[in-house]
Amino acid sequence: MTIKFESVSLEDAQRVIAAGQSEASKIGSPSNVAVVDAGGNLVAHIRMDNAWVGSVDISINKAFTARAFDTATNDLAEQAQPGEQFYGIQGSNHGRVMVFAGGIPLRRDGLVVGAVGVSGGSGEQDQTVAEAAAAAF
Amino acid sequence: MTIKFESVSLEDAQRVIAAGQSEASKIGSPSNVAVVDAGGNLVAHIRMDNAWVGSVDISINKAFTARAFDTATNDLAEQAQPGEQFYGIQGSNHGRVMVFAGGIPLRRDGLVVGAVGVSGGSGEQDQTVAEAAAAAF
Amino acid sequence: MTIKFESVSLEDAQRVIAAGQSEASKIGSPSNVAVVDAGGNLVAHIRMDNAWVGSVDISINKAFTARAFDTATNDLAEQAQPGEQFYGIQGSNHGRVMVFAGGIPLRRDGLVVGAVGVSGGSGEQDQTVAEAAAAAF
Amino acid sequence: MTIKFESVSLEDAQRVIAAGQSEASKIGSPSNVAVVDAGGNLVAHIRMDNAWVGSVDISINKAFTARAFDTATNDLAEQAQPGEQFYGIQGSNHGRVMVFAGGIPLRRDGLVVGAVGVSGGSGEQDQTVAEAAAAAF
Repeated sequence: MTIKFESVSLEDAQRVIAAGQSEASKIGSPSNVAVVDAGGNLVAHIRMDNAWVGSVDISINKAFTARAFDTATNDLAEQAQPGEQFYGIQGSNHGRVMVFAGGIPLRRDGLVVGAVGVSGGSGEQDQTVAEAAAAAF
Repeated sequence: MTIKFESVSLEDAQRVIAAGQSEASKIGSPSNVAVVDAGGNLVAHIRMDNAWVGSVDISINKAFTARAFDTATNDLAEQAQPGEQFYGIQGSNHGRVMVFAGGIPLRRDGLVVGAVGVSGGSGEQDQTVAEAAAAAF
Repeated sequence: MTIKFESVSLEDAQRVIAAGQSEASKIGSPSNVAVVDAGGNLVAHIRMDNAWVGSVDISINKAFTARAFDTATNDLAEQAQPGEQFYGIQGSNHGRVMVFAGGIPLRRDGLVVGAVGVSGGSGEQDQTVAEAAAAAF
Repeated sequence: MTIKFESVSLEDAQRVIAAGQSEASKIGSPSNVAVVDAGGNLVAHIRMDNAWVGSVDISINKAFTARAFDTATNDLAEQAQPGEQFYGIQGSNHGRVMVFAGGIPLRRDGLVVGAVGVSGGSGEQDQTVAEAAAAAF
């Protein structure tokens, strides 16, 4: 028995990213927006003009994290606090686990087929942009 | 005295990438195409459907290398061979120096303002795609 | 459309570092002082006699962090605490994000053109030295 | 019995670097110049305007290598070629061993007390700059 899985295409990723870029422009938060596939590997990324250089890595890894655990990063954040059940998870996976808002799984027919990650603004701004991006999927 | 330097914009990067994607489709070589700015930092990336997952990193780092040394990676390749003057340079910069074809600096008025990196096919295919991408700049 | 951006020159960096060194001597806190350019890449660094060896990396990465997020590292520190919006950001960028005092962006005409990072003493001492260094820009 | 060792001071390092910078300007090869101490740890570094960004790491690690093995890096280069006795040494020390010209130990009374590393030009240019730098010690 093989496992079948579906994954976002480049076309999907670019549509998701364009929606994120549009929302980021609208709320005035220059952002990095990245999409990974069902394997957690990068499909596409953009850094808007004047967005933080340090957020390249973060956007890609928020997307990775959301797919790696099929969980939005802001939900994971709660579990990663001191005293909580996943405290320390951010040290795993060679530093790729991001435990703050902005990463959201992309689902089709209930199945996670990829994820989007956004970084460049406050946690609230990143979440807003990521939700707009995911909604275009 | 500050130094003024110019850098590719996201719009530039997306035009360069679209040209690379178009050439890659034409020659049947599903590719990763990445563009970095004047500081060597990622501006945009795509992985075409069915392109190698291991080439995500390579495409980004070919672009990095072409800007880090203001040199096409296939030119650097010759100097990095055993017995040549830069033999071993591929061990520097935490493994980010790629010494095979597919990375090309982007120049405006003689100044390097970024670079493009392509990975997914043979060295010849990657170089062909990178040249088509760079020509759109 | 290319983006024009300005960056610190070596001459700028050396003036900033000399001011940091002078302040560090005055307060008796042997320090590492580093300056990065607009791309986050190192321009110059000194380790004063008897300053901690482990602070070489920290000074360079405080400067990187201040430019990567256009934010002083002690401001980022507050946001990186448990429960705060950027908790866990210190795991990103391959361990280069420093979330304690001593990194300050260098601005010209409101634009971030580089950053200075200081490490070697207490948080308060590092901050004092970094402020004296940045003031010379 | 304790082992006594001497090491370059920051003042030494800055004199060595200034001599390197002067020679680099004279031969028209914008360079990175770095000095490490007897422990192999960075004392000071400069990147001249327009010198390659990828050479920051290389200059520091050429200096590290020259001290780590008390050997000029161009001598080590010969031993690191395929078939030679130290082939593969460039994979050790987490990628810090540079096996091409430009790193020279600094000696006082026959004892290695630090090293200088230069990167930014051809192997020949880097070697010329490193020799001028070391001669100022």
